[in-house]
Amino acid sequence: MTAVNRRIVLASRPTGAASEANFRLESAPVPVPAAGQVLVRHHYLSLDPYMRGRMSDRKSYAAPQPIGEVMIGGTAGEVIASEHPGFQVGDRVVSMGGWQEYSIADGNAGALAPRKVDVRRIALSAYLGVVGMPGVTAWYGLNRICEPKAGETVCVSAATGAVGSVVGQLAKAHGCRVVGIAGGKEKCDYAVNELGLDACIDYKAAPDPRALVGLLAAATPAGIDGYFENVGGIVLDAVLARMNAFGRIAVCGMISGYDGEPLPLAYPALILTSRLKVQGFIVSEHPKVWPEALGELGAAVASGKLKYRESIASGIASAPAAFIGLLKGQNFGKQVVKLL
Amino acid sequence: MTAVNRRIVLASRPTGAASEANFRLESAPVPVPAAGQVLVRHHYLSLDPYMRGRMSDRKSYAAPQPIGEVMIGGTAGEVIASEHPGFQVGDRVVSMGGWQEYSIADGNAGALAPRKVDVRRIALSAYLGVVGMPGVTAWYGLNRICEPKAGETVCVSAATGAVGSVVGQLAKAHGCRVVGIAGGKEKCDYAVNELGLDACIDYKAAPDPRALVGLLAAATPAGIDGYFENVGGIVLDAVLARMNAFGRIAVCGMISGYDGEPLPLAYPALILTSRLKVQGFIVSEHPKVWPEALGELGAAVASGKLKYRESIASGIASAPAAFIGLLKGQNFGKQVVKLL
Repeated sequence: MTAVNRRIVLASRPTGAASEANFRLESAPVPVPAAGQVLVRHHYLSLDPYMRGRMSDRKSYAAPQPIGEVMIGGTAGEVIASEHPGFQVGDRVVSMGGWQEYSIADGNAGALAPRKVDVRRIALSAYLGVVGMPGVTAWYGLNRICEPKAGETVCVSAATGAVGSVVGQLAKAHGCRVVGIAGGKEKCDYAVNELGLDACIDYKAAPDPRALVGLLAAATPAGIDGYFENVGGIVLDAVLARMNAFGRIAVCGMISGYDGEPLPLAYPALILTSRLKVQGFIVSEHPKVWPEALGELGAAVASGKLKYRESIASGIASAPAAFIGLLKGQNFGKQVVKLL
Repeated sequence: MTAVNRRIVLASRPTGAASEANFRLESAPVPVPAAGQVLVRHHYLSLDPYMRGRMSDRKSYAAPQPIGEVMIGGTAGEVIASEHPGFQVGDRVVSMGGWQEYSIADGNAGALAPRKVDVRRIALSAYLGVVGMPGVTAWYGLNRICEPKAGETVCVSAATGAVGSVVGQLAKAHGCRVVGIAGGKEKCDYAVNELGLDACIDYKAAPDPRALVGLLAAATPAGIDGYFENVGGIVLDAVLARMNAFGRIAVCGMISGYDGEPLPLAYPALILTSRLKVQGFIVSEHPKVWPEALGELGAAVASGKLKYRESIASGIASAPAAFIGLLKGQNFGKQVVKLL
């Protein structure tokens, strides 16, 4: 091989908001697979909010990303050289290839081995979103923590994002009234008209937290029974005030606080007075549900019942800016970087 | 009957801290039981933090206490007149008689009917505490929400109170390392020397929240797996920072915020990063566990394994001051008012 593998490494840790200066584009030789390994050429790179946590070294659920190493991340691509009998050149696979154009993957790594995917009825990029980690995240948090029952009201923040858009559609399939929260009229229109949600609140249209509570109250006349949290901050405060007794809150993300000072929760006593269950989770820690969830999600996407939307950046060099945009909510649907 | 029933009514709602001026002592004729009813003379009146919530009219889990009506509350006493075949004069009973010397109770009210108690091996007043609502509260929150396993670390705030003292002893019986949090050296000494806790932190000895985290860290070298919350505020903030992955927090009370402005939670993102379950509960909503819990608690008290302590005020007129003291942590163990 004489080709070059371009890749993005973490150059420095952010102080405050992450910026493009925290990343550096490098070139390296394309690596050669050893016995048991495959070489994958990435078609798509996944960008996800959890990556922000790895850029910092404050306490989190995962080890910080080392400085100077390739940014971690899910990838979808094609096997272009195989030293493993289970993989052939041309196989489409998803793996944790990182922010680069090529990666080596270990075919014997068990749950961490590349996963072959069928692209006849589902687009390759969808395996990074609706039929991938974000989709399973939605499935797990909704079904196992929010536990929605028909007729209940479910609310989801970042309602048009990779995770939230799946939450909303699955909750509708459970027979719930579903209210989204998103930033901007365009996203809210999409949530209602395309995703089929009953209502969607534009949090940017609320001049202050009290106004947000008012908008939410108007959209949830019977209160909220299940909430899937992706953002935190004043959105969580507003939802807490609308939660019904015995409500369940799945805490998947708090992206509004990722880039700066931690955001407090204004009224934690509501957890007691409304007898709420508030539970954080990380989908990678629940591997047993993945086959069932991916099976359901894949069937629903293939049949057209489950819709998704992508924001596609082009070329590895675009990854840092696309990621910064994701943290600011500038994406619309699943954010990927198309490399090929 | 010519006897007088002295009683305490809610005179006004507090603005800020509750005070004795919010209550009024009245006299009324002792009532006469109708068919199916009994007349109970109260020996003890229970004072509990939840009563503060009923004094206000802000949103809570129970309807506000009406102005001018007798304050609600559990009572332990003696049947002195019966128009119900299931009760005889002399029966010792617990019921929700309220802050007064006598009350009428309906023998046919099902779960709300007076409950006859056996005072041969357990003191009557204990049925308002360790073998009553506070004891079952401890049992439920610990066993059903904290779910402690042997070898884990359990933490409990208000560790010498009516609820907390039971939590700590039950958690020790589960084989856990148990760390209490209480106000003052005397209470902490009692928690360790009498209740058998492994350590107890005097939150009043911490000059600021950071110092409290330091004290807690020293006492919980392996982190905290289960937390039983009675107080909220900076104590909850400190404990959250020490919670291990997959920890469970039972939210039973947030007494530190009952008397003033709501206290925020500083770092709610820890619920996500530590994958915590934070769950509020009210024991009266879980009637199915009461028989099992009361059976266990009663046996443990009768055998001397489960210890308790009481702060005893004397006479109905002392109830308001004793209640105000309870909200300030001036009690030591279960606060009751002895009426006879």
